[in-house]
Amino acid sequence: MRGSMHLRSSDIEDLERRRRAALINSITGYKPANLVGTANNERQSNLAIMSSLVHIGSHPPLLALIFRPDNAERHTLNNIRDSGSYTINHVHSGIIDAAHQTAARYPGSVSEFAATGLSELWRDGEAAPYVGEATVRMGMQLRDEVPLAINGTHMVIGEIVSLEVPSEAINDAGALDPQIADSIAISGLDSYYRCNLIQRMAYAKPDEAPRRL
Amino acid sequence: MRGSMHLRSSDIEDLERRRRAALINSITGYKPANLVGTANNERQSNLAIMSSLVHIGSHPPLLALIFRPDNAERHTLNNIRDSGSYTINHVHSGIIDAAHQTAARYPGSVSEFAATGLSELWRDGEAAPYVGEATVRMGMQLRDEVPLAINGTHMVIGEIVSLEVPSEAINDAGALDPQIADSIAISGLDSYYRCNLIQRMAYAKPDEAPRRL
Repeated sequence: MRGSMHLRSSDIEDLERRRRAALINSITGYKPANLVGTANNERQSNLAIMSSLVHIGSHPPLLALIFRPDNAERHTLNNIRDSGSYTINHVHSGIIDAAHQTAARYPGSVSEFAATGLSELWRDGEAAPYVGEATVRMGMQLRDEVPLAINGTHMVIGEIVSLEVPSEAINDAGALDPQIADSIAISGLDSYYRCNLIQRMAYAKPDEAPRRL
Repeated sequence: MRGSMHLRSSDIEDLERRRRAALINSITGYKPANLVGTANNERQSNLAIMSSLVHIGSHPPLLALIFRPDNAERHTLNNIRDSGSYTINHVHSGIIDAAHQTAARYPGSVSEFAATGLSELWRDGEAAPYVGEATVRMGMQLRDEVPLAINGTHMVIGEIVSLEVPSEAINDAGALDPQIADSIAISGLDSYYRCNLIQRMAYAKPDEAPRRL
């Protein structure tokens, strides 16, 4: 590495607004690229790309999303509150353009499915549409909403009640191999990555050296 | 894709415990691989790999981590509560073995720095050590802790007060390019990935078609 940039709080504060957003949105590292599908009580659908999905627990299977109510995600949040249901669909390499376009500030009357050409997949008895083109799809039930007083964002915690994955993308341990599923990583606000497995590690134990599988 | 596996809540509940953990920990998609450095009041250090880092806001720059107090992360959480400080260091391809090994359940008296051979980097006036081998490093100040009643986990929200990145890894928009920084993605509990940029997209607008940069 040729040189290092070292910023303190005041340097971060002094960055131009868009460059600060670009830096801080990218500084966590790779993020999962997911499309969140919802609908209002009239079955008017909504679709939003989100990169804030985080694992909360496996038993019960709980995942969280962070919402900023002042941007394009607000329609999604309102639909989740009203219906209690949403879907999470992995972005794969064939739908990146459409997935990214869902971030545009469409009016509430416009479905991002129709606007981007992605197809709605409805299942009987469920209140939110899946993305027909996705191969990894989760049906979620809202379990809790936690307002984060520190900056007005909201954490939505949901339970996985339906889970579809390509059979061939499940490895010997029972895990999803996102490379086989062609899932995509995102960095910052605009960059999409394909990933290649370089190491798989055995369960770490204090009295054993690290071991590659 | 040859076939799809479709699990409902009861199917997930019926999975063998380790296979359920493997599946649900991997189902969100790619996650950032980070090492969290802390110390107690006697400067006894601690280091833990974590994949739950999530962006909360850019102004002020806030990031969150999810802790499960019943596992190896509890020493880290205790140190953060006591000192108010922690560091976040990107895992790169040269330190994956050591980074993974920090997940072993070492006793509280053992520093994962010493146990794994990673070096402590201390800065004057700061209460937590960085990883000397890392090139993307953040100094964090604890801002809030949110207990998640739903399953006993804790969300720790911190503000970035120091940020180091290789100068050459900052792109034209001011964002970190994690590929140039050699940052690593993780899937599930044991799989480490190198990622390649395949598309960068222009800011999405409702009245414009998606455009690749």
